[in-house]
Amino acid sequence: MNYTPPTRELRFILEDVVAMEGLKTTGAFEELSSDLTAAILEEAGKFCAGVLAPLNHSADQFGAQINDGEVTTAPGFQHAYTQFVEGGWQGLSFAEKDGGMGLPNSLGAAFQEMLQSANMAFGLGPMLTMGALEVLTHAGTDEQKALYLPRLMSGEWSASMNLTEPQAGSDVGALRTMARPAGDGSYLIEGQKIFITWGEHDCAPNIIHLVLARTPDAPAGTKGLSLFLVPKFLLDNNGEPGERNDVRAIGLEHKLGIHASPTCVMEYGGNGGAKGWLLDTEGKGMAMMFIMMNSARLNVGTQGVGVAERAYQQALSYARDRGQGRAVGVEDYPAAIIHHPDVRRMLMTMKAKITAARSICFACALASDYAVHSSDEDERQRAKAREELLTPLAKTYGSEVGVEISSLALQVHGGMGFIEETGAAQHYRDARITPIYEGTNGIQAIDLVGRKLNMMGGYPMVRLIEEMRETVEDCTTSSNTELPFIGARLGAAIDTLEATSEWLRDPAREQADMLAGATPYQSIACETVGGYYLAIGAVAAQRLLKDGEETGFAKDRIALARYFAETVLSTIPGRSGDVHAGAALLFGVSENGLGT
Amino acid sequence: MNYTPPTRELRFILEDVVAMEGLKTTGAFEELSSDLTAAILEEAGKFCAGVLAPLNHSADQFGAQINDGEVTTAPGFQHAYTQFVEGGWQGLSFAEKDGGMGLPNSLGAAFQEMLQSANMAFGLGPMLTMGALEVLTHAGTDEQKALYLPRLMSGEWSASMNLTEPQAGSDVGALRTMARPAGDGSYLIEGQKIFITWGEHDCAPNIIHLVLARTPDAPAGTKGLSLFLVPKFLLDNNGEPGERNDVRAIGLEHKLGIHASPTCVMEYGGNGGAKGWLLDTEGKGMAMMFIMMNSARLNVGTQGVGVAERAYQQALSYARDRGQGRAVGVEDYPAAIIHHPDVRRMLMTMKAKITAARSICFACALASDYAVHSSDEDERQRAKAREELLTPLAKTYGSEVGVEISSLALQVHGGMGFIEETGAAQHYRDARITPIYEGTNGIQAIDLVGRKLNMMGGYPMVRLIEEMRETVEDCTTSSNTELPFIGARLGAAIDTLEATSEWLRDPAREQADMLAGATPYQSIACETVGGYYLAIGAVAAQRLLKDGEETGFAKDRIALARYFAETVLSTIPGRSGDVHAGAALLFGVSENGLGT
Repeated sequence: MNYTPPTRELRFILEDVVAMEGLKTTGAFEELSSDLTAAILEEAGKFCAGVLAPLNHSADQFGAQINDGEVTTAPGFQHAYTQFVEGGWQGLSFAEKDGGMGLPNSLGAAFQEMLQSANMAFGLGPMLTMGALEVLTHAGTDEQKALYLPRLMSGEWSASMNLTEPQAGSDVGALRTMARPAGDGSYLIEGQKIFITWGEHDCAPNIIHLVLARTPDAPAGTKGLSLFLVPKFLLDNNGEPGERNDVRAIGLEHKLGIHASPTCVMEYGGNGGAKGWLLDTEGKGMAMMFIMMNSARLNVGTQGVGVAERAYQQALSYARDRGQGRAVGVEDYPAAIIHHPDVRRMLMTMKAKITAARSICFACALASDYAVHSSDEDERQRAKAREELLTPLAKTYGSEVGVEISSLALQVHGGMGFIEETGAAQHYRDARITPIYEGTNGIQAIDLVGRKLNMMGGYPMVRLIEEMRETVEDCTTSSNTELPFIGARLGAAIDTLEATSEWLRDPAREQADMLAGATPYQSIACETVGGYYLAIGAVAAQRLLKDGEETGFAKDRIALARYFAETVLSTIPGRSGDVHAGAALLFGVSENGLGT
Repeated sequence: MNYTPPTRELRFILEDVVAMEGLKTTGAFEELSSDLTAAILEEAGKFCAGVLAPLNHSADQFGAQINDGEVTTAPGFQHAYTQFVEGGWQGLSFAEKDGGMGLPNSLGAAFQEMLQSANMAFGLGPMLTMGALEVLTHAGTDEQKALYLPRLMSGEWSASMNLTEPQAGSDVGALRTMARPAGDGSYLIEGQKIFITWGEHDCAPNIIHLVLARTPDAPAGTKGLSLFLVPKFLLDNNGEPGERNDVRAIGLEHKLGIHASPTCVMEYGGNGGAKGWLLDTEGKGMAMMFIMMNSARLNVGTQGVGVAERAYQQALSYARDRGQGRAVGVEDYPAAIIHHPDVRRMLMTMKAKITAARSICFACALASDYAVHSSDEDERQRAKAREELLTPLAKTYGSEVGVEISSLALQVHGGMGFIEETGAAQHYRDARITPIYEGTNGIQAIDLVGRKLNMMGGYPMVRLIEEMRETVEDCTTSSNTELPFIGARLGAAIDTLEATSEWLRDPAREQADMLAGATPYQSIACETVGGYYLAIGAVAAQRLLKDGEETGFAKDRIALARYFAETVLSTIPGRSGDVHAGAALLFGVSENGLGT
């Protein structure tokens, strides 16, 4: 159950597929270089593989424990967290002026993936702190920044995000937690929040809760929401944790997976109200949420890729070691199962889909870098549009790949996969949350067809399709005999994506029919775009082959893209009917008839 | 977390889709009638829903415990098992001459489904006993039958099947357990078996182990295997359990799911050898296994359907109760999530796929009834061929539907689905074993393309395709406006199935290429055949509509078939490329290149 950071793969995607070094043209990352990327991945990989990965299985078995409001994390977590802080990893992709390392989000996404591969339950803590850092750096007052930013950026303190309440899940606007002005500029928060990841733990001396709540007389729905900063320990005059605030964990959830991540029920104000401070102004709660939404969703996609990579590595290792039966063309008996076509198919599917999903995530992160750092305002807007478009795809495809690949990895193990000691089952359990949290994949699909397809008059998808067609052209005209096949499959998939996009954007389309097609459309979009990045990889590999370099590695990139084209892209034209089916089809069976 | 036996659905499939009552023409089931079917399903459903279903969640939490070789099952299991025996359910589908109820396997499959829905961990016990009963009724000597059959048929004693060893999973021929003649007609068995379901427990006063082992000087591989009957307690002169045999459980596996099913590591002969009696003759081990293989594989498929049905019922209930957000055309705020198109899509997918998989299972069971009871030898052979063809489809599609539907059901619950107390996660965990045991789905695919497609010169698939085309014709010429659409989608899917079948059967086809296409072909076969049974249901429903009966129910059957046609069958023509891709594609990335 070792984990080997896939640094070569990560670098290939960053450098040859999404071309991260182009960021240097913005002037914001002048030091960026292949050597720097390699050094960061190397160092981060060492920490993830050496410190976090070995704790993954034991932490799953221990879980997290609560006793009178105090949460004990798994043995080893405190020490690992200390090392995480010492490495300065929390601030990797934040600006140097805010105390971060000043590296791009795209490189940060590669780090996130390794972190989540190594230990998803642990990695959730820093992921949540990252969300709070997004909000604080963008919207905190100078005073708030002075008080909280350095300790959060270093990771010394952690953060939690408090949105969900029992009646308010996907419908955030239904939440009821109240925040009443205390008269001294602060607010008193009362209410209960559920599913609060790392809401309470023993790894940091303070926890900064960001809490979505409703102010008195605020309008109903999302417009009435404001965001508050609620520290576990109020700061004393020296800015050190002092008096305990009126907030506590009153329970931990018993979950299918990520056992070692404490998922808390939080009670605010059991004793008069938890002291909190408003971020931005009243009524801006949803706007604050949107600041962190994109990065949080991308991070969940990356998390799906991370757990898939870990599961894949374990399955590959098992397939090489496990002998069973005879295989065509193999002398040894028993043959290692990696030689059986069906096992090979599973491994190829895993590797191809991981690469596709990883590429979408990194491309999304890179777009977010350009959206902030491009010197040109138009280019920033276009990059932002690309980020907005890719975010639901990254979240959805990363999480779906997480579930599918961890299931295939379990299957490769046969009966042993079902035994908890093997470790394959943990990945399968852990991955299952990713299609749910940070907006279910169904919510992502609604966001994609309802908002993203219609942004800027449809520009983001139209432009992406144009770019993808350029890659089709590169493939079709290549001297390599494999690439034209990839180009043909990709071209047909793009045709389908374009036609279904237009169908969904038709102004005459009923909203119910658009919503009915959202999920199958999103699936087409994810796989077409994923196949596009694999094709870029194949084109890049062909360049490497021409230059006489890296022959084996480059040939494998082309074979992988071809595999995805023939087994996944080839199915896409046949899936458009599902998009066009319409709501009448979905509601064809009466509500009563759905029952027994 | 209630369970409602879906008796109306079960009856519709048995009576109107696979037409079980046709069995009366064989003369073997003269008493068969709609009333009898209804009465049996009613009574069995009462037991499953009333006794077994309420124990499902608590038993999952308790698991099974082992102490010094003694296994304690979950609280309530002993009492439930007693009631199972009192109901005579074990012998439902066995001949009256052997002490069974003398009902058809097809009706037995409906019972199996309910049993597995109610409590999959419990249901595994009787499922294994059923396998032993198949062997014993077919191959036991009169003496063996006299000693063991009555107590096994009543369920008073249970049985276990002992095949797997650490080095011998899919490759049964690699097993090493030895059986040496003791000189008195019995054998002494020595070896270790793993993954032995219900190998030891406290619900029955004796356990009859069927053990696959190798005799001295037997040839290597499967040809050297023999099957032995090894009782936990040797029988005394009165046929009562007496002296303890030299076999014991030395450990229980800690599994992802089916926690309450004791999965044992069994040691035979720690103290001189476990006494066993040969079934049939030496070297007939695999032949004995094949006797029970079809029914065991079908039972696993049915099990997948069962857990899917249970998960679906829970998701449907949640979707009706849970309010969240606004839905198009719905006044209430919050709207029950069943009104959201994406949730509706998940529910429709669940119901349609469950129906498809259930139909395949029942059709397979019915073929096995005809294979035994037809008065005509040719008809028996043709029915046997149909059973052989449908067995890998039933096992594979039932198990895949189990995994997919339990995952969708979890997703419908949103964050609550990930919380163990909700119960959705248990179904997801339980279902995951079904694509693995009784031959992984990859093994089923090899069986399908390597053996079943080529049986009798290809007759079984050719004949099935002919029948399916008749249903296409029925749909196309129907006066109902929906049915021609179903017919068109089904027809196109059948064309693909036919073309890929011929491609795989081409004598010039390399074995490696055939194996490479096996899994995607099997997927096409499962869904096409599933869609065929849904279409038959639609045609039958149209008849009911014409007769002016059951309007709502009949309309819903047509809508369900249409949904499956538009969302599943419509994708099939686009999936043939994956079948034809060939081994070169799967092995395109070097073994080394699969790594990091």
